[in-house]
Amino acid sequence: MSGTPRVLDDAAAAAALAERAGPAWTVEDGTIRRQVRCASFPAALTYVAAVGAVAEAAGHHPDIDIRYDVVLLRLRTHSVGGLTELDVDLAARLDEIDPAAP
Amino acid sequence: MSGTPRVLDDAAAAAALAERAGPAWTVEDGTIRRQVRCASFPAALTYVAAVGAVAEAAGHHPDIDIRYDVVLLRLRTHSVGGLTELDVDLAARLDEIDPAAP
Repeated sequence: MSGTPRVLDDAAAAAALAERAGPAWTVEDGTIRRQVRCASFPAALTYVAAVGAVAEAAGHHPDIDIRYDVVLLRLRTHSVGGLTELDVDLAARLDEIDPAAP
Repeated sequence: MSGTPRVLDDAAAAAALAERAGPAWTVEDGTIRRQVRCASFPAALTYVAAVGAVAEAAGHHPDIDIRYDVVLLRLRTHSVGGLTELDVDLAARLDEIDPAAP
């Protein structure tokens, strides 16, 4: 993709997600989000480290909230102030991480 | 410490923090919080992993928010619905982590 990515409204983002990412992601108020309950706090940290590695490789970084064993991921393209294909792409890539793996 | 820890009001928590932890911590609305800007997103992840290891060893777990290179830590003793010495203890222990180390 070259240039500034096109902003997707919530409906367009939801359609793109349905096509390319798993059902755990939802669109809410201009963010793509997923909440993951891990087996433990250390498992949540391991999951966050894996998410972070994927995000850094993609050059696109989710907001990450850790609440003991629950991790909330929120994706948004801050540079354009909305959702774009970059967020859908990252959601699809993050699906490759198994939160139960650790 | 045995039994249920005593709840500290914000003023008592601030006094205990001033005595035992560094100046980066503040008390706000019944939480002890610290915001740390790291050198990068990977540095923030490394900092969070270090915080998590200390928290797990202490058996007391902060809320952790990652916003690219900024990490927000919020401490509260959820089991008693307020601040306790457990939170002040954890703040003091977390001071031993250098966010700039990675």
